Amino acid sequence: MEQVLLLTPGPTPLHPRAVAALQWPMRGHMDPEVFAYNDRIVADLHTLYQTGGEGLTCLLSGTGSLGMEAGLANLLEPSDSVLIISNGVFGERMAEMAQRLGARVSVVRAPFGLGIDLAEVSSAAERVRPKLIAAVHGETSTGVLNPIPEIGEIAREVGALYSVDAVTTVGMLEFKMQAWGIDYAYTGSQKCLSAPPGLAPVAYSARALAAISTRKTPVVTWYSDALGMLGYWEPGQQGRKYHHTVPVQLHWATGEAIRAALEEGIPARSERVRTVAAAALAAMRTVGFEPFVSEAIRLPTVLAVRLPPGLDDAHVRHRLRHDHFISITGGLGETAGKIWRLGLMGETARPEHYRALLVALAEILGEPRLPVVFDQALPTAALAA
Amino acid sequence: MEQVLLLTPGPTPLHPRAVAALQWPMRGHMDPEVFAYNDRIVADLHTLYQTGGEGLTCLLSGTGSLGMEAGLANLLEPSDSVLIISNGVFGERMAEMAQRLGARVSVVRAPFGLGIDLAEVSSAAERVRPKLIAAVHGETSTGVLNPIPEIGEIAREVGALYSVDAVTTVGMLEFKMQAWGIDYAYTGSQKCLSAPPGLAPVAYSARALAAISTRKTPVVTWYSDALGMLGYWEPGQQGRKYHHTVPVQLHWATGEAIRAALEEGIPARSERVRTVAAAALAAMRTVGFEPFVSEAIRLPTVLAVRLPPGLDDAHVRHRLRHDHFISITGGLGETAGKIWRLGLMGETARPEHYRALLVALAEILGEPRLPVVFDQALPTAALAA
Repeated sequence: MEQVLLLTPGPTPLHPRAVAALQWPMRGHMDPEVFAYNDRIVADLHTLYQTGGEGLTCLLSGTGSLGMEAGLANLLEPSDSVLIISNGVFGERMAEMAQRLGARVSVVRAPFGLGIDLAEVSSAAERVRPKLIAAVHGETSTGVLNPIPEIGEIAREVGALYSVDAVTTVGMLEFKMQAWGIDYAYTGSQKCLSAPPGLAPVAYSARALAAISTRKTPVVTWYSDALGMLGYWEPGQQGRKYHHTVPVQLHWATGEAIRAALEEGIPARSERVRTVAAAALAAMRTVGFEPFVSEAIRLPTVLAVRLPPGLDDAHVRHRLRHDHFISITGGLGETAGKIWRLGLMGETARPEHYRALLVALAEILGEPRLPVVFDQALPTAALAA
Repeated sequence: MEQVLLLTPGPTPLHPRAVAALQWPMRGHMDPEVFAYNDRIVADLHTLYQTGGEGLTCLLSGTGSLGMEAGLANLLEPSDSVLIISNGVFGERMAEMAQRLGARVSVVRAPFGLGIDLAEVSSAAERVRPKLIAAVHGETSTGVLNPIPEIGEIAREVGALYSVDAVTTVGMLEFKMQAWGIDYAYTGSQKCLSAPPGLAPVAYSARALAAISTRKTPVVTWYSDALGMLGYWEPGQQGRKYHHTVPVQLHWATGEAIRAALEEGIPARSERVRTVAAAALAAMRTVGFEPFVSEAIRLPTVLAVRLPPGLDDAHVRHRLRHDHFISITGGLGETAGKIWRLGLMGETARPEHYRALLVALAEILGEPRLPVVFDQALPTAALAA
């Protein structure tokens, strides 16, 4: 099978340390070496999420969508009220999940690609007095960065718990769980960490755990019950409790990827993604692509671009994939056929990868200007990164 | 990290083809090569479960416990009635999950290690008229093989749907989903297939899908909704639908492990496990271990043995793990400290592995007879397998 360069908004090309760790020896889920390794993951996730060391961090044995569902299932009881902030597919997914869980769901919406009106969030929060406010930090479906600290202020004012989807941000951009007043956050292993898909690194605040401990009804899903996770991940008075067989290979790989991210450092990773994204966008603008999202709310890790008039979406992406072995992604939901989404998470955000994409694109479009302009647009600093 | 020989009831040592597949190139979850590979998995799972080609087979992005929960969540609506057959930890887990899901739960129980009374199941089914009967084929916690075809007869008589936990059986022992009237079955990738943990290969009958399609309420968990899986795994009129980012590396590895199992063939695998289990038990009996389960209901893939009087469970297992790099498992729940559970699923059921265990055990116990008796007890045919 050929190597394909994934420049999608997840999964990302694997970090070399994650690839190597997939071949570490097999261990059982109750083995002392697994617990020791998990302890390091717990500590590293506290650093990554900036939790202040409080609460529970762990890996859920499922993808980021399981992470989304676990938070809603644990923090909401049937007929509890939740306020969801949505301006994309993943905000809508949260609303659907909360609905299925039997919560009373209110949604503050903005159109796909546009920003959230904080005044509207504030008045909805005052009106609804929700138990939980849930928002998406970076909308993978549109490339919008939402005002997470500001929504956190509103949650604090109305005394609501606060859940944040950190799927496209944590590990690449600054994420301050404690300072921003967040009670639950989650991502997927295959996004900013460039580990294989299959795990959801999550963080619960101490306040979230207290709320879960005093629920009137049991969490509807045994598999995602935070107290079950707590018993396995943190030694209690009777030691560690078996819950389910964790995916050990994915623990190794994700643990190494988290360690690699912390060693590079979030400021350096942020700088890397911003530099590559800016250079790629500048080059693409010269041949008619335009940013889908205005600069003030543009997510650096998922670059959404509106296609030039007349560009045949399916044809160009097919040629990229089949002739050039490069995979990029189109729009989701109402943006399908109108935009492309270029991933800049983890190992995707590298100048050599975006150079390859732009050269291929120039060839497909018969557009000689693109590589030349690209050479000018990509600063030497980024090429050396 | 050292290689440790896992002779536990899961996870198992990885099949070499699964190890190799973990290094295959990365692909996105919507890539045509992933869909083509998934199609082969679907076909192979129809063969493995003997579905007759009807219904939906697929991999859930979580462990066997997610497989258990998915079936209950999809086949039951709140206040639907379910009859659970329990004689071990996993039967009890089903009851807890069904309770959390809001079903009306009736349980027919037998003590851990003993068989189910079919007359009791029958009269409970007549009394309760459940929408669903759920049973465990092989109880990992005790090593009991339950009468799945006979319970299937009872389900048919009362018109109930029928869900079966095939975690320790499918892939190693005969499993006839269609002939036994089963509507939902599941396992974990790390059990009889010797793939890495993290996936649940499952099968829904056509009747189960019809029941799910006509539910009055949505499935409470978006993540495990069978119709969401169907949209991703089977091309509909609008092609394949994105649901969540599947764990591609685990798909490769599990797909190869399934293929390896089918190439060896279930009859040959059954013969392998029965031969090794019989020889190991015969050797262990000579130094005072006794089978925990009577022969008629003994599960070949998990050999549960009662410890000889005076044997220090923790000490001996600690020495096995630390001096001999062999991992075995003790009792779960009420059998903790009283039994050991030796795994004979997939790659565990090999004479060379059980020879290593018995030699190590003889050394730890200061029991010179054990290796000699073992040599006599293990037939040449098994050693050559």
